[in-house]
Amino acid sequence: MRVVNVGMLGLGTVGTGVVRLLAENSSIIEEKLGARLILKRIAVRDTKKARDIGDGGWEITSDIDSVIADPGISIIVELIGGYSPAREYVLAAIQNGKNVVTANKALLAFHGDEIYAAAERAQVEVRYEAAVAGGIPVLSAIKGNMCANRFWTVLGILNGTCNYILTRMTREGADFAAALKKAQELGYAEADPTFDIEGIDTAHKLCLLVSLCFGTRIDFKEIHTEGISSVSSLDIDYAARCGYRIKLLAIGKRHGNLVEARVQPAMVPMDDPLAAIDGVYNAVRITGDYAGTVMFSGRGAGMAPTSSAVVGDLVAVARNILTGRGRRIAPLGFLDGKIATLPVKPVGDTISKYYLRFSVADRPGILARIAGALGSNQVSVKSAIQTSKRVGEAVPLVIVTHEAMERDVRKAIDMVESLGITSQRVAMLRIEDDLA
Amino acid sequence: MRVVNVGMLGLGTVGTGVVRLLAENSSIIEEKLGARLILKRIAVRDTKKARDIGDGGWEITSDIDSVIADPGISIIVELIGGYSPAREYVLAAIQNGKNVVTANKALLAFHGDEIYAAAERAQVEVRYEAAVAGGIPVLSAIKGNMCANRFWTVLGILNGTCNYILTRMTREGADFAAALKKAQELGYAEADPTFDIEGIDTAHKLCLLVSLCFGTRIDFKEIHTEGISSVSSLDIDYAARCGYRIKLLAIGKRHGNLVEARVQPAMVPMDDPLAAIDGVYNAVRITGDYAGTVMFSGRGAGMAPTSSAVVGDLVAVARNILTGRGRRIAPLGFLDGKIATLPVKPVGDTISKYYLRFSVADRPGILARIAGALGSNQVSVKSAIQTSKRVGEAVPLVIVTHEAMERDVRKAIDMVESLGITSQRVAMLRIEDDLA
Repeated sequence: MRVVNVGMLGLGTVGTGVVRLLAENSSIIEEKLGARLILKRIAVRDTKKARDIGDGGWEITSDIDSVIADPGISIIVELIGGYSPAREYVLAAIQNGKNVVTANKALLAFHGDEIYAAAERAQVEVRYEAAVAGGIPVLSAIKGNMCANRFWTVLGILNGTCNYILTRMTREGADFAAALKKAQELGYAEADPTFDIEGIDTAHKLCLLVSLCFGTRIDFKEIHTEGISSVSSLDIDYAARCGYRIKLLAIGKRHGNLVEARVQPAMVPMDDPLAAIDGVYNAVRITGDYAGTVMFSGRGAGMAPTSSAVVGDLVAVARNILTGRGRRIAPLGFLDGKIATLPVKPVGDTISKYYLRFSVADRPGILARIAGALGSNQVSVKSAIQTSKRVGEAVPLVIVTHEAMERDVRKAIDMVESLGITSQRVAMLRIEDDLA
Repeated sequence: MRVVNVGMLGLGTVGTGVVRLLAENSSIIEEKLGARLILKRIAVRDTKKARDIGDGGWEITSDIDSVIADPGISIIVELIGGYSPAREYVLAAIQNGKNVVTANKALLAFHGDEIYAAAERAQVEVRYEAAVAGGIPVLSAIKGNMCANRFWTVLGILNGTCNYILTRMTREGADFAAALKKAQELGYAEADPTFDIEGIDTAHKLCLLVSLCFGTRIDFKEIHTEGISSVSSLDIDYAARCGYRIKLLAIGKRHGNLVEARVQPAMVPMDDPLAAIDGVYNAVRITGDYAGTVMFSGRGAGMAPTSSAVVGDLVAVARNILTGRGRRIAPLGFLDGKIATLPVKPVGDTISKYYLRFSVADRPGILARIAGALGSNQVSVKSAIQTSKRVGEAVPLVIVTHEAMERDVRKAIDMVESLGITSQRVAMLRIEDDLA
């Protein structure tokens, strides 16, 4: 049987999963590929560390260069993570003519351009299905069967940690801190959860989706990114009362030659299928001019789903190698010279309905002053709820607006906060009830 | 710019969509492919018929053989539909060394083996993403990025006509005949709707999904197939009252070396995302050992979504042609020699909870006799509802069972019907509240 040799950098959770999948399902892979995928060399920091991966005949080494330079290896799997030295190793592998499979969204969000250009020169493939939404093969769909579409929208729930926390807050009325703590105990959140809860990981993934769907570079800094740490259980409650769920959404849209790209917690109608994506599940929804709206959901992270995506990429590259092909598909689907740099629409220019929660004293005239501040900024009120009635105490006043420009809403909030009638920062969430 | 020439057989709804998509999105396709897809020849029955497809430089001919034999054409798109002469043309195209793209599930469900074997000999590709779930790229996912998984379950809502009818019955309380009539008026159902409403179209699609997921041949006749024509609005009502929706489900499971494959209307819990797939939408849910459960949903039919899938397949084959030699992937993912013929588990042996509706006179002792018939066949009652109380008239008695074997449930029903206490056939629906 023919053989395709693979080298792997890093042997953490995902690496261990890849080793196990290649061993357990080798017969299935061979029945489809007509060849064997052999993990020839694995580079690790500490070769002495005990690992529960059996013995598959591979060489475990701390000499990364020996893996990258091995002339018998045609695919390098990068599972080190982070920006550097992952970037240097990936570029070196490409220069050595190796195809690269990676799960590293941070690396591609920042250094994608450089890596894709190098891959174009070397005519090798760079695949990264595992970088977005774990076991859900959405990048392959965009680059593959859906490739003939002009895409208008790509959006989703892309971070399992945030979704787990929001789900727990919704189901159990837990506050953010308690839900985060639980997520950490269960291993769904890191000790330092900043990357996840502040939306950065989601923005990395959105960066890749926007480039793949719209054929444009996007500077990571231009993605408006908000996390979930300021979402309060009070807002979760009000959302439920009004028929919504709060989700951290990544939203990319194309408006002519402008791109919209933002990560924000938002209210989603309960009858939108996204509202039902709970716990550590992810979902991606894409709208193309011919396919219409297609939604994908599944496990967005974890050893097994991520390994499924990595090995799927390995098989795709191996199929090329076995049939005499150089690279068959560019990293972004679009060929390198065809990638535009579309300007990003400032989030202030985007339009939505808004949920606003003001913490105010329950005194006559307060609603009038707030409504006045909104009105003078072209923000029109759709409904207002003030449940508690303890005169003199701070109570929540919730206002839902008609469609308004985010810039105007923020101006109105600043104006209200300057009036000295609020006892906390105003809570503001978009209401996304018209998601393509 | 390089060119890949395509020949098309048939120019109905989908064919027209393909022509339009290739014209409208040619720049997008070229930016990804680095080449032009040219529709060189189109074979139609009547060359004089007026068609709203503009002029793209193609030749329209009634001489199918001249399209199939054209040495300049490397891909044939078969959009004639039906078994014959589609089979003969596809086989001839393959013998001429052409790759084939088709949307014809009936053809592949019946003649797949013969066609795949011919494609193996000729080393050409046969792709058919449009045959299942329209614009949803689920076959590409199974053969592509998810290919390293051992699949255990594949299920879904695969027929838009049935789903539209059931949705209308649910939302508006319409009965089956009225909902079918409306579907026909809107063009969602054919004048002769048998293929759709009797589950045959769904079974064709399940046949393909089972082969792709489990690597097995399956004789179409071995798929237990029930349609929706006997679903009454009464059952839809009771389902809603108990927290269910009725959907026509295609279900494929692998139990060791046995395959389960059935098409049945069934009750799905309202909080299952499948319950929210409404109208002409389709959904497919797959469970693999590594990826876990992944769900895909979107438009399952119609000119535009189907064209998206057909052109996606064209691009995939064109990428092969432009980068190297021969075929890259087998029609079922599994190589021809690796396809098993696993036995099919008789539907009588499958286990489920059941909803049973008996039309009986509301007299003392009736429930006892029915419960007795169930009990003597090892079917245990979970709950019983009898709403009306007009003594002597036929009233519905609804029973929900615990898990039971289908064979036993059918035996119990036969026994009840032989007692002479029922005024109509007993309605029976599976309750699928444990879908992977």
